[in-house]
Amino acid sequence: MSHEPRAVSWTGTALSLIDQTALPQTLRRLDIRDVDALIDAIVRLAVRGAPAIGAAGAYGVALAVAQARRENWTDGRLADAVARLRAARPTAVNLAVCVDRAAGRIPEGLDAVLAEADAITRQDLAANRAMAEAGADWLLKRVAADRPLRVLTHCNTGALATAGIGTALGVIRELHGRGLIETVYVDETRPLLQGARLTAWELAQEGIAHKVQADAAAAATVVGGLVDAAIVGADRITRNGDTANKTGTLGIALACAHAGVPFMVAAPVSTVDLTTATGASIPIEQRGEEEVLNLIGGGITAPDGTRTRAHNPAFDVTPGTLITALVSERGVLEVSSGQLPGDHWS
Amino acid sequence: MSHEPRAVSWTGTALSLIDQTALPQTLRRLDIRDVDALIDAIVRLAVRGAPAIGAAGAYGVALAVAQARRENWTDGRLADAVARLRAARPTAVNLAVCVDRAAGRIPEGLDAVLAEADAITRQDLAANRAMAEAGADWLLKRVAADRPLRVLTHCNTGALATAGIGTALGVIRELHGRGLIETVYVDETRPLLQGARLTAWELAQEGIAHKVQADAAAAATVVGGLVDAAIVGADRITRNGDTANKTGTLGIALACAHAGVPFMVAAPVSTVDLTTATGASIPIEQRGEEEVLNLIGGGITAPDGTRTRAHNPAFDVTPGTLITALVSERGVLEVSSGQLPGDHWS
Repeated sequence: MSHEPRAVSWTGTALSLIDQTALPQTLRRLDIRDVDALIDAIVRLAVRGAPAIGAAGAYGVALAVAQARRENWTDGRLADAVARLRAARPTAVNLAVCVDRAAGRIPEGLDAVLAEADAITRQDLAANRAMAEAGADWLLKRVAADRPLRVLTHCNTGALATAGIGTALGVIRELHGRGLIETVYVDETRPLLQGARLTAWELAQEGIAHKVQADAAAAATVVGGLVDAAIVGADRITRNGDTANKTGTLGIALACAHAGVPFMVAAPVSTVDLTTATGASIPIEQRGEEEVLNLIGGGITAPDGTRTRAHNPAFDVTPGTLITALVSERGVLEVSSGQLPGDHWS
Repeated sequence: MSHEPRAVSWTGTALSLIDQTALPQTLRRLDIRDVDALIDAIVRLAVRGAPAIGAAGAYGVALAVAQARRENWTDGRLADAVARLRAARPTAVNLAVCVDRAAGRIPEGLDAVLAEADAITRQDLAANRAMAEAGADWLLKRVAADRPLRVLTHCNTGALATAGIGTALGVIRELHGRGLIETVYVDETRPLLQGARLTAWELAQEGIAHKVQADAAAAATVVGGLVDAAIVGADRITRNGDTANKTGTLGIALACAHAGVPFMVAAPVSTVDLTTATGASIPIEQRGEEEVLNLIGGGITAPDGTRTRAHNPAFDVTPGTLITALVSERGVLEVSSGQLPGDHWS
């Protein structure tokens, strides 16, 4: 059960990250020693996944404190660095929440900041394990199948996206550990292919049977009865259960609702933003056009020149009304049946 | 209005095809002189789009007849070549229908076969123009907007996919000709990127504003109110209006139904298969895994090795209940309101 890589770890002097832009071809680590290098790594998705960038952000505050000492920064310059780190990506709430937690310990010194970052990491790992069990239990009861399950997932929500075994992929790992996964349909997740590159890599490492499919195939996979459930992660969940997650999640939820297939969101409570009432208020990150107009590793997809533009929102919002189950370390809310995070997880 | 390329044309001695695998980087033509070269071109999608492969298939029968003369084939060998051509791709009904039409003229000789192929081509062009007008008229009435429209399309349904101006893209060209297109959201259409490579190329040639997006972004584009309608083509339409089209079409239709956005299918009557009752009986072509696991022009998307497999259906089936309007050269059927092809287009 312990093949999972550690996407984010502290070496004692640096933040060590798996460079997720190099997978699946190359497994290499980045040693990050200053805030701007971390912001760059977050922006270009060398580290990604809401819980993982939360943990990385917390250690980033420690890097900033150490750098401030080393380079004799003013308090204003330190505060500015922390603020830029906090805003490196806008949609996931975890980054801001974890940076704020770690920054709250700055008056106590570097060791206190590091202790907070360690605590965030430990809590994320524990949350992963708790939601994996709760999600697997709920799903087995709901599906009531006496055979291993076929599930669909989108993007990467595994060890690479968290400090632990993953959120949605943690539920899948738990089901596999019980011998109850037949196969996983993995959406490739364009434009950056986190499904094909990262989720398939994690599943191959664990020996879990899987098939990669074009994102466009997901609706027919669900409606055609090829899967028993869809399980995805979340970047931000509002009081009414509306959930921002990787672009493409909404389409999967619509297909599940149409077909009567359970649609599960697995995310730690730290992903829930009780200050936001509905998904309409979630800021959706628009990323560079070149991600869509070029293929990873070279090659253009569309005609060169100025006439072809791209629309590249990194996330979409799935209404809570389409979410059958929201599983966190505190258990499962049946959101589409009216159990709202704002009522239960204050 | 006449920038459209001729995807399929007869040179007098050969079938000339635009090599659609080379676009958008290179515009080059293939001269096809024997049946097996045409079958190869159809299988690897050098020529694609249901009406275009229909026309190419009809000329292919002429190639077979000429080749049979040249090489002294038996009648059995000629019949076998025609049968293999007819079955080169299974989902679109046009290929089989057009091959059968041309083959029916074989007893009358090569000129009669060519005359039939020419007639198919002329009829497709005329059908394109008629459905473009009917589709544009219906849409403007339905949307009742006093401004240019924003529409979404999937795959390529343009001049490259037909013998004329296109089906869904013909409707868009017609709206543009009336000054009524603001922008077109073009799904890139993985795995082979017919949207990004071919539709964006045609739109850029015509000077029609457009944005390419990941297929996974389509649901949020529709649900978020960014478009007034979705317009797609079809590979086969059954008696009850169930429609096979490029993988990803079903997801767009579900998003349109959820958001109350019109979902239009534009296709010639030759795409309607009245011998088939429902979409459950349409054979869905499963294509090679390498299309998903590799990027065009090189580069793998997923981990190497035997553990990662791909699921690669080329088409999906959209229930007629999700199709607001089905437009052909005979006008518009409001399928989701109960106007079924089997009742109206016998």
